Formats: sequence, structure tokens, C-alpha cells
Amino acid sequence: MKKNVLIIGAGGVAQVVAHKCAQNNDVFGALHIASRTKSKCDAIVASVHEKKAMKVDGTFDTHEVNARDTAAVTDLIRKVDAQIVINVGSAFVNMYVLDACIETGAAYIDTAIHEEPEKICETPPWYANYEWKRRDTCTEKGITAILGAGFDPGVVNAYARFAIDQMDEVKSIDIVDINAGSHGRYFATNFDPEINFREFTGTVYYWEDQKWKETSMFASGKTWDLPVVGPSKAYQSGHDEVHSLATNYPQADVRFWMGFGDHYINVFTVLKSLGLLSEQPVKTAEGQEVVPLKVVKAVLPDPSSLAPDYTGKTCIGDLVKGTKDGKDVELFVYNVADHKEAYEEVGSQGISYTAGVPPVAAAMLVASGEWDAKTMKNVEELDPKPFFTILDKIGLPTRVQIGGIGGEDKAWNA
Amino acid sequence: MKKNVLIIGAGGVAQVVAHKCAQNNDVFGALHIASRTKSKCDAIVASVHEKKAMKVDGTFDTHEVNARDTAAVTDLIRKVDAQIVINVGSAFVNMYVLDACIETGAAYIDTAIHEEPEKICETPPWYANYEWKRRDTCTEKGITAILGAGFDPGVVNAYARFAIDQMDEVKSIDIVDINAGSHGRYFATNFDPEINFREFTGTVYYWEDQKWKETSMFASGKTWDLPVVGPSKAYQSGHDEVHSLATNYPQADVRFWMGFGDHYINVFTVLKSLGLLSEQPVKTAEGQEVVPLKVVKAVLPDPSSLAPDYTGKTCIGDLVKGTKDGKDVELFVYNVADHKEAYEEVGSQGISYTAGVPPVAAAMLVASGEWDAKTMKNVEELDPKPFFTILDKIGLPTRVQIGGIGGEDKAWNA
Repeated sequence: MKKNVLIIGAGGVAQVVAHKCAQNNDVFGALHIASRTKSKCDAIVASVHEKKAMKVDGTFDTHEVNARDTAAVTDLIRKVDAQIVINVGSAFVNMYVLDACIETGAAYIDTAIHEEPEKICETPPWYANYEWKRRDTCTEKGITAILGAGFDPGVVNAYARFAIDQMDEVKSIDIVDINAGSHGRYFATNFDPEINFREFTGTVYYWEDQKWKETSMFASGKTWDLPVVGPSKAYQSGHDEVHSLATNYPQADVRFWMGFGDHYINVFTVLKSLGLLSEQPVKTAEGQEVVPLKVVKAVLPDPSSLAPDYTGKTCIGDLVKGTKDGKDVELFVYNVADHKEAYEEVGSQGISYTAGVPPVAAAMLVASGEWDAKTMKNVEELDPKPFFTILDKIGLPTRVQIGGIGGEDKAWNA
Repeated sequence: MKKNVLIIGAGGVAQVVAHKCAQNNDVFGALHIASRTKSKCDAIVASVHEKKAMKVDGTFDTHEVNARDTAAVTDLIRKVDAQIVINVGSAFVNMYVLDACIETGAAYIDTAIHEEPEKICETPPWYANYEWKRRDTCTEKGITAILGAGFDPGVVNAYARFAIDQMDEVKSIDIVDINAGSHGRYFATNFDPEINFREFTGTVYYWEDQKWKETSMFASGKTWDLPVVGPSKAYQSGHDEVHSLATNYPQADVRFWMGFGDHYINVFTVLKSLGLLSEQPVKTAEGQEVVPLKVVKAVLPDPSSLAPDYTGKTCIGDLVKGTKDGKDVELFVYNVADHKEAYEEVGSQGISYTAGVPPVAAAMLVASGEWDAKTMKNVEELDPKPFFTILDKIGLPTRVQIGGIGGEDKAWNA
């Protein structure tokens, strides 16, 4: 029997997930989407029908749920008889949704680590603070839980695994994420500003010489000359995948680099220096308690509102260095996506697109059994080839440059 | 009988007013200070006694009052039998305090125009929107009300009057305010951030060719080479005194220029562009209604906390151009103040000092009868010479450069 899918969340990424599930609903059973605000789910399903995205006849129902209430999520999973839950709600809900999956036996897929609202950038490896504490339970109960199955983390973990599989020894993994697109606004973040800024206000952890090292945001930068987007300045940033890759490949240096323009850095620096990115409440002169970061979020454009005007391309990839047969080898495994094409296909901008397509590919592999691991896995612990095969078909083709960035360019399976 | 003084407010300027009243309490009766938070008043009076600032024996009592409650202020004025009220509370309380003075017969002195919290930068001339509507009542009842008797507005209005009195015709008045001091923080405003930013987010009104013209903040800038502080970039800004001077001297062009460094402009531009300086509430994702500007205020340093580390000087003056006996003449009338000296004398930084000393000089002239006008006056409508004589003695000496900025330099009465 085909597996029913429940999507948790109704933001820009959820919009992509919904469209992609619909476009591939021949491999799924009934589709469901739930969030705190049901009207947002209704709008997403309406856009799915408007684009005539359902591949075959089927249902796509909407629900209201408080995703931080495990019992409520458990009830909903049982009510709709979901066998796969794709959690693309806020980063604050992961553990509640995961626990509901463990309770009901549904497979769990997410795209980013769990965070507690009042904590930023906990001790590495991040997954050990929350998700990995449930690994033994998942194994005992035979629950499939795929962590961090967006693009980064997610596809880039598979890129690393793919490259490492072709080497005898891996020495370093540098993940580079360049958004060379333009949204035409004074300033905006590409996904939830609260999560976006939280990512950059804490310590930047990276793994070198088999230990955790620390730097701070924008302290370590270099220019990367990537395919299609060209030379772009990127800075070492804290990112989920560093924490699982460093654990699974402790012999390799693992770093994450994110591209930022000078304008972004200036705005970020002003806000951070003033204390406006703080997740800790302040008290106004009138005595109102307010979290500054939530006010910054309130004045910034809704990331999903950027989609219609967004132009340009993203390039995200892994430069993996190692040895093969005693010789140094380098592979750059990457994808290029286009903002405008994403909008035309699913009504979202490219950043949401790259984040939302991969968890659907993962869900299709759970549905087919290929990734139905019956335990908890990060993406690099799963075979990347069936994942790439699906991603090629559903919008995020994988390419490789042999010898490093700028080397011979080909499809991953050419 | 000597006149009792009631100070309204307990911020950085109130601290200076309290010290200066104490230092000159031989011309006053009992001293009182009241604000929403009595403990702030207690701290100010404690600092007065710590510096042994009371010139002669006398009382200095503290009170709690909601200055936006005319009845409460009226009761307090009657209770303490105040004949002079120096209002250095927030700009939102003026009309309530003024009405209480009209009710009780006390003289009223303030240092800035009335503002309503939800409105920014109303139509010119600003005084006509609120204060001047009470002028006829003040005249009928014989109430002395001296508007805008800080430094700017205030002393600079007297500077203009002093220069114009030496001319047959005035052609232009350019007021230049340069703070060349350093507070050593990443960013801070020198007085209440809410008022400070409100001043710069609206239309910049100025008076040229006998009509109101408009520009926007930082659109019109030039470098002024002022005494002591040297060449400094200043930008046309909206300011209270432009509105009264243009009304009283309609034949003259009237402009106000405030000095800003590139760093201030960058921070301001980022905050304004993002909408964080808005006085209009926004709603967070959690549904909390918040005024962004109040949150910015909450994260910035308390202006009074800057005082101990503040170094450097301010120069504020009027370049007045006109004709005398058929020839073009120029006078630059100015003061230079020192942040560190201000702190050592009264425990405040220079910006609070320059704003807080003049209303006490005005109160001394009301007490002596010289400025007890029995109607409503802006400072340029009063004789500047006794004002300068007192300011010379109590810490803000007036100097003049003949022939314009950089010309022969002398004391105003030399």
C-alpha cells in the first residue's frame, strides 16, 4: 500500500514540498499539510491545484496543528494515517514532531537541526544535543528518521559521501553556498529571518585537525570562483552538516562557507552590534518585554514574498579533497539552480526550492524502501546514488568537476 | 518673595537643570523635581548634595508625577507652591504641563516642541500645531511661557536675535551644531534615542525665499570649519528653532545643520531603511504589537550613561548674514563646551549640559523679572543680553567672530 504523507509547516519551503509531493503523488498515498495557521495550508494547496500539479488523482487535505504539542501531532498522524512525516516547520518544533513519529511509527524527515528559542549555537556536535539522543529509541522501535534532508544540510552531505566513496582517504570537505540572485529589496533574508540570523550570531564551529575549532562570523572569508555564478566572497559560517560530517568523517577537515555581499554584512553588523539580533528579551521604557530579533523579523520582508521578483542563480557544492591510489585527488560536486525557474514551476524562490525539493526526494526513497532505514540517519549515512537519480529528475541535477573547482565538468553519472 | 522652582523630568538634561538650579538657589526659593519614577529624582538630588551644589541653604524635594496628567501636575504645582516650572520631561508631555501652568499661574519654560507619540514631523511651523494655540490664553491670563529655551532651540535663537540687532536687514541664519566629542561606544545617541531619531526620520523643513522648502535627512550636506572643533561635515536637519525664526524673521533664509560622522549615518540609514525607526506598531509572528523605535531605544545605551567616558568638545553657533549701512555683514555667534568639564561639574555629558544650563538661565531671568513676559515667547523675542550675561557666568560663554566663521574672535560684550 502506498504511504500517506503529512507535511508539517506552511512557509516557503513547505510550499515547494507540497508542489513536489503533488508532482510525484504516484509514489505516495494521500497528501496532507498542517500548520498553526490552516489558511496558509489552504493557500498552498490552492496553488498546487492552480498549477495542476497533482500527477495522478488523489487527495491533498489541510489541517491546523500546534507542532510543539507532541500529543496533537500524534493524534493528527493517526487521524490521517500518515506513514511519512516531512517536517518543514520552524526549527523549534523538530523534537515534538520526531517524538510523535516515534510514538506512531511514522517515518520522520526534516531539513534542519532542532533549536530551543532561548538558546543559540549550542556545543558541538549540534545533533548530539537533541536528535541523536533519540537514535537508540528509533533503532529499537524500527523508526526511520532522516535528519537534515534539505539542500544544506542534506544534498551537500550526499555530495560529500559521493566524493568520499571515490577516494581511499578523505582529507577535507569544504561546502560552499553562493546565492548570486537578486531580490531587488533593500534587505531581506532568504528564509525565516529569525533562524537566518540565529545561525550567524553565535560561535562559528568548524572541524580541523580532528578537533572543534571556533571563529566568529565574517572573520574568515575567501573568494570562491564557482561554476556559472563566478567569483564570490564567502565566509565560514556555522552550519548543521559540519556537525554530522565531522562526526562521521573525523579524519577530514570540515568547513562551511556562505556567500555574503558587503551590503548584507553591513546591515547584519549594524543590527548585531546594536543588540537587535538578540533572542533575549529587553524591556522598553514603557515596560513591555520584547525579543529584539522578533521585531527585526516583523519589519523584514516575508521571504516567500521575494519569489516573484527574484532573478539569478544559486550554486551550492562540496569541494572534497583526499587521496586515491596514493595520489591527491579533488572533486567538486555541485548544483546550479535558477530563482525564476523555481518561481515559474512552484511559485517559490530558489532558496526555498533547493531546500524543499530534497526532502521530497528523500520521502520518495522512503516510500520505495531504498532509504527506509528503520533507524535514525544523517544523509551521508545513506546511499547517495538513488537520491541523485531522483534529484536529477525532479529539478536539482548533480554535476561534478574533476580535479577540483574549474576542472572537467560532467553529470555525476556520466 | 523668591520663586519656588519645580523641575519636571529626571533624565540627563534634568540632572544638569537640577545642579544649575542648586548652584544658583540664592535667586530661587525652594527647589522641587518630579518624574514618573521618583527614584530617578532621588538619585539626581543625591548627586546634587554629593557635589555640595546648593549655593545657599534650602530644600530640594522629590516627587512622583505622571506629566501627561494635567490635573496631577496642577495639584503638584499647587502643593509645592511653584512659581516657575522647568519642563525637561519627554517631548510628549509639554502641552499637559503647559496647561497646568496656565491653570495655576506658574511660569512655564521648556526646551523642545511638543510631540504626539504617533505623529512625526508635522506641518510647519511646528509651534503652530500645539504651543502657539495657547498664546492668546497666556496673554489674557498673564502667564509667562518661554518656549524652546535649551541650547538649540534656545541659545541659538538668542544668537540670531543678537546678530540681527546689529544689522539693518537680515538675509540668512544658518545654525550649525557640531559635536566633536567621542563616547567610545559602537553607537549611541546623545539624548533620548526616540526623540533623536524622530527628529531625523521625517521631512526636513527649511525656510528659503520666504517659503517652506523640503528636503530629506542627509540629502543636503556641507563641511563647516568651526572654531576649536575644525572642519566637520554637517547636514540640513529639521529643528524647532527654524520654525519660530522663520516666523519671526520671514525675510531671512533659515536653515539648521547638524554634524554627523559616516558611521552614524550608516547605522541610521540601515535602521531607517529596515523600518526599525518607525513610531507605528508592527506585529510579531507571535502576535505581539511593538513599536520598533521603542525597541531600538531599549537596546541603545542610556544617553546619561555616556557621561563618564565622554571626551572632546561641542561647537554650536549661528552664522547670520545681512546688511548694515548698505554693506554686507556676517557674524558668527557661538559657544564651545567640553564634555569632560561638564561631567566633572554636574555629572553629565556635554550635550545634556548645553541643553540643561540655558533653561536655568531663563528661570533666573524670570525670577529677576527681566524675562517675566506675562505672555508666551520664543527666545528670539526676548532681550538676549541679560541671557548671555548669565550664561557667561554659569558655564556657556558666548563668543562672536566678526566677518563670519574664522573672522576676528571676541567675547560677545568685548
